[in-house]
Amino acid sequence: MEHFNFGTFAAILTTTAFLPQAFKVIRTKDTKSLSLTMYLFMLSGMVLWTLHGFNLNDKAIIYSNIITSAVNAVILSLKISDLLKEKEAKKKSS
Amino acid sequence: MEHFNFGTFAAILTTTAFLPQAFKVIRTKDTKSLSLTMYLFMLSGMVLWTLHGFNLNDKAIIYSNIITSAVNAVILSLKISDLLKEKEAKKKSS
Repeated sequence: MEHFNFGTFAAILTTTAFLPQAFKVIRTKDTKSLSLTMYLFMLSGMVLWTLHGFNLNDKAIIYSNIITSAVNAVILSLKISDLLKEKEAKKKSS
Repeated sequence: MEHFNFGTFAAILTTTAFLPQAFKVIRTKDTKSLSLTMYLFMLSGMVLWTLHGFNLNDKAIIYSNIITSAVNAVILSLKISDLLKEKEAKKKSS
């Protein structure tokens, strides 16, 4: 009996999941409850997955990780820009 | 020539990345900037990855996705509980 292919649906869900987070952050300009460490780990991990994909010569791994890396980079850069603004504001108020 | 194995480091980073987010949410009780849709997609995707792991009989896929599903479920339940509290507060104020 053929197994039902959960993998394709799994890949679509976990690959597109970061998009609504990126849209939310762009729309609200609010990154306060996002963890900087999470997005640093996630982006580094995804860049390594992309390199792993090149080693395996597997286009599915390469392309899905390039896309999610780009989306993660957007979230991470908005988080870092928020932290820098916060630091600047603290400096002014003290 | 052996390829450098980026895969192991990639897996460690993307598997552990959600932990600091979970700790942050537990510590601060703040989920305002987290996207509900992201965590719904992510948890569904990870449950499907786990099932895919069972189909392939691959312990690495099964265990890493059970762990990240649990961590994601914590973040998602705190997000949902926040949204319910917010709704309740709005009802009282109107």
